[in-house]
Amino acid sequence: MNASMIKQAMEYRQLVDVLMSNKEFADIVLAGGNVINVLTREVYSTDVAIKGKYILLVGDSRNLIGPETIVVDVTGRFISPGFIDSHMHFESSMLTITEFSRLSIPSGTTTLVADPHEIGNALGPIGMKAMAMEASTVPNHVYLVVPALTPDCPSLETAGYDVTSKDMEEILNYPNVIGIGELQGFSNAKHVYNHTPEIITDLIASTIYAKSMGKVVDGNAPELFGSELAAHIIATGGKCSCHETTTKAECVEKLRQGVYVFMREGSTQRNMAECIRAVTEDGLDSRRCILATDDMVAEDLEKLGHMNEIVKRTIAEGVNPIEAIQMVTINPATYFGLEDVGVLAPGKLADIAIIQDLENMAVEAVFLEGKLVASKGELLIDLPKYTYPEEVKSSVKRLPVEEEDLKIYAEGREAEVRCIELIPDQNLSGSLEVKVKVQNGTVLSDTAQDVLQIVCLERYGRNGNIGKAFVKGFGLKDGAFAESVAHDTHNIIAMGTNLKDIAEAVNHVIKMKGGIAVTKGGKVIEELRLPVGGLITDELTGPEVSRKIAKLESVVREQLGCRVHAPFMHLSFLALSTSPKWKITDKGLIDVNNFEILPPVL
Amino acid sequence: MNASMIKQAMEYRQLVDVLMSNKEFADIVLAGGNVINVLTREVYSTDVAIKGKYILLVGDSRNLIGPETIVVDVTGRFISPGFIDSHMHFESSMLTITEFSRLSIPSGTTTLVADPHEIGNALGPIGMKAMAMEASTVPNHVYLVVPALTPDCPSLETAGYDVTSKDMEEILNYPNVIGIGELQGFSNAKHVYNHTPEIITDLIASTIYAKSMGKVVDGNAPELFGSELAAHIIATGGKCSCHETTTKAECVEKLRQGVYVFMREGSTQRNMAECIRAVTEDGLDSRRCILATDDMVAEDLEKLGHMNEIVKRTIAEGVNPIEAIQMVTINPATYFGLEDVGVLAPGKLADIAIIQDLENMAVEAVFLEGKLVASKGELLIDLPKYTYPEEVKSSVKRLPVEEEDLKIYAEGREAEVRCIELIPDQNLSGSLEVKVKVQNGTVLSDTAQDVLQIVCLERYGRNGNIGKAFVKGFGLKDGAFAESVAHDTHNIIAMGTNLKDIAEAVNHVIKMKGGIAVTKGGKVIEELRLPVGGLITDELTGPEVSRKIAKLESVVREQLGCRVHAPFMHLSFLALSTSPKWKITDKGLIDVNNFEILPPVL
Repeated sequence: MNASMIKQAMEYRQLVDVLMSNKEFADIVLAGGNVINVLTREVYSTDVAIKGKYILLVGDSRNLIGPETIVVDVTGRFISPGFIDSHMHFESSMLTITEFSRLSIPSGTTTLVADPHEIGNALGPIGMKAMAMEASTVPNHVYLVVPALTPDCPSLETAGYDVTSKDMEEILNYPNVIGIGELQGFSNAKHVYNHTPEIITDLIASTIYAKSMGKVVDGNAPELFGSELAAHIIATGGKCSCHETTTKAECVEKLRQGVYVFMREGSTQRNMAECIRAVTEDGLDSRRCILATDDMVAEDLEKLGHMNEIVKRTIAEGVNPIEAIQMVTINPATYFGLEDVGVLAPGKLADIAIIQDLENMAVEAVFLEGKLVASKGELLIDLPKYTYPEEVKSSVKRLPVEEEDLKIYAEGREAEVRCIELIPDQNLSGSLEVKVKVQNGTVLSDTAQDVLQIVCLERYGRNGNIGKAFVKGFGLKDGAFAESVAHDTHNIIAMGTNLKDIAEAVNHVIKMKGGIAVTKGGKVIEELRLPVGGLITDELTGPEVSRKIAKLESVVREQLGCRVHAPFMHLSFLALSTSPKWKITDKGLIDVNNFEILPPVL
Repeated sequence: MNASMIKQAMEYRQLVDVLMSNKEFADIVLAGGNVINVLTREVYSTDVAIKGKYILLVGDSRNLIGPETIVVDVTGRFISPGFIDSHMHFESSMLTITEFSRLSIPSGTTTLVADPHEIGNALGPIGMKAMAMEASTVPNHVYLVVPALTPDCPSLETAGYDVTSKDMEEILNYPNVIGIGELQGFSNAKHVYNHTPEIITDLIASTIYAKSMGKVVDGNAPELFGSELAAHIIATGGKCSCHETTTKAECVEKLRQGVYVFMREGSTQRNMAECIRAVTEDGLDSRRCILATDDMVAEDLEKLGHMNEIVKRTIAEGVNPIEAIQMVTINPATYFGLEDVGVLAPGKLADIAIIQDLENMAVEAVFLEGKLVASKGELLIDLPKYTYPEEVKSSVKRLPVEEEDLKIYAEGREAEVRCIELIPDQNLSGSLEVKVKVQNGTVLSDTAQDVLQIVCLERYGRNGNIGKAFVKGFGLKDGAFAESVAHDTHNIIAMGTNLKDIAEAVNHVIKMKGGIAVTKGGKVIEELRLPVGGLITDELTGPEVSRKIAKLESVVREQLGCRVHAPFMHLSFLALSTSPKWKITDKGLIDVNNFEILPPVL
């Protein structure tokens, strides 16, 4: 027995004494409330008794009340296990774990399972380790599921570090790591099988190893059915989740094949309403249905809430409220093997959300390990700002660029070019072939047609690649912007109306060692520093980030004429080489469906 | 990666090839049947494709059929995952694992979770290790959950070996051991807490250790509610099952507190019909409801079937048939963390039962790891008889007794004695005070009143204890019988009309090194040898044991006048010191409710 086991054994022995002796008593008794029992799918009126960090009893607790017991009257309220977000990326919020927790705990979220996929691409093991270290400092429960492969498509892009099966022994043993994260490397099953089958062999080596350690593997199987879905499931080691399910038919197929379906409902991607029809219309057993956010921005966390909001929307789709709450409690706890959370029962951690009513899911108070940590939306505990070590703050290693480096060359006075078409609110993009002017051998952006240059620059000091192409859809009339957030390899991506502003924006991101820069007239007019892996700020709090992003968005809208909301998020997804149709990476313009790199000029 | 992981990775890589290449194909396709999908609680018509020992796909498999694929037409039949018996003792059947498997596989049982509680009491680690070794030789999946404490009540009885937390590191690491078995040491919560609280501390040390290894702990909480139940759950490490639930109210209470309720339905103890009302009447979520047999005799296995019969009875109580099948497939697989069985899905082991109809649950064929192993009740594979090593065949170490050793002394011509009252078909017993004759200082049995002597003799060479008392209920008119099966410490228990026959029966059991002996007129008239730990025969097959027991029973009925059916099983439970009211152990007559040893004469 190690020290933590001895500690738990002593704590459990004390719980038995309290329950059996009539000499020791509960610390807290929540009395008069309606218990949401996710074990039996019932609601009924009874007490919940707490001792130390554990639940003592769910049931009549009058005999457990001693002279020093705090009896909390929760008459008319609902007592639920704290909520679990089963798939999320801290990087999407640009927040540290600490700042994300500051915003999510008051909404009743007590457990987060994060995929450090972005920092993994940028920094590899040292980035994930740094995040694991922060995870072990916060009062809520934060677990990590780590990537088995970076970059997602090694032949099409450059990441800061190439994670493969060789890394599994190390990274799966970092503190709080409970599995492998989203297995994007075999999402596009047909193409990977035909073009890079060696990736499948390597992924299986990783997933079988993880499985042997009792760890989970999150799949990633958008639009896969039948044999392709089965192949993907087998590549995950035979048990997986998928958070990329967008239709009812796909949801039914995945549940039938044993996939735990993470119904996604985040800041931009919202698939729950469609997926949940497998339950509301077809009545399928929902034990493998789970709710998750994937990507949440700070502003939504602050203004809408977190898993309570997602549960509320799920209930609004016609699901039994307790069944919906099972999807953020017992269902994910069972999937992840998190034995201590997700249910209210003797010996479990007293992570509890007190809910006002089941229609609005307003969370009135939150207990974490038996301690009242939030009330009426306010965090009641001190949560010191977390500062990351310097070693994860120098991920941007490239030298500044000149306009010259970014030029796309062509002969004559006009060229037909390939242009990525932005599709608002989607990771998917379109493809266009457009005629634009050529001046002195250089192809020009054309604001009239909204055909603007886009570039992606390798930023890890590995090869200095610069991918170049055109993009339509942002509507900029002036200036440019750049960022070191560019899914999933997070090179520097930039777009704009002229090469001078693009180069200046890129160079400012390089100078800041990561972040977002907006330029106009050759000058930086707004910035956000993201020093941690070029993805996260440990300088600003959640609300500060929320305000800063709003400011940046208003600047590009008002000063550059941008027509798209959330332009930085949209730009960052134009590098996502796993989602069709055309994308840009440091290697160039990518034809995702055909695994090909295309020249920008026809 | 170790060798088995590399092997599985290679097998999985091949499965991906079959699914993706159109060059390799399935070995077997079950076509045209109705798939019982325990993942979604649905039945629908589709195919199941198998490659090697794994399921490739549940779905349209036409593209997976190649020139050498065997297509099995199962039109009109139901395709179910193979069944799991989640709590059983091989010792109760007196059969080796091999012989039990020979009888249970054709009924569709592909996984057995056995508690070697009896051999653990008799032999300690070497007995459990020997059983674990046999478990790894059979073609079906046999897992063990090992005792954390023997004997159940150290102050009241002597076992062959004292298992405590000191043994956990060794025995939890034997092959196929997936947890701790029924935690009887803290079943009678109040009494253990008051009399032997140190046992609770030791049990918690064991269960926390098991939990840290990701292993399960089976509880044992008969008639516990509220705080006492909570204390029991906490002593199991916070997650447990219970197979001792006998009423609906108890079932509801346990499910609400997070206990996995093993609804028992065995040869003698049948609690399913009562427990299942929590589901059929109250509609509770049944994900933690599981069916188990606990104790099955060979004859029932042979004549009635196994888990298919239990499922049939459960369906007859009004449960949705697929929900009932979930209770012997996905529910226990989830509880035990058996990732490879219990569902039909890609990458899982192809353990399959083909069922004729869902009302009778007649099993037509059984696949184990992709191989057809049984058809129409006949085993199709060679299952060689298993012989145990000599070291587990010398558990009976005491010297022969004389009549003198068994005498109960009293003065005068008459004595008032304490008499255990047999209650047919129960583990519980009653208590009587009766007047009997005394001759030359020795208390005599009285066949007229049916007050007969009963003895329990320590048989492990540890202290030579002999417990003595009287019993009413067998109705013997002549002779005696003895056996080395006496729950749970399995000393030698014997009863009869006169000391000569009792001594002879005891001495014959000693001479056989374990077994059952029937005596009359000072001579042995029938016997069954049970050399393995004094509990199991590795000399006879299942059907032979079944016939032998029938023979023994007919001899005691016809030649000794016994009025009780299953007299050997009834006698064996009269030593069970955890079940009220009066029992006999090697230490004497036990007042179970008060943890006291009482003299036989008032």
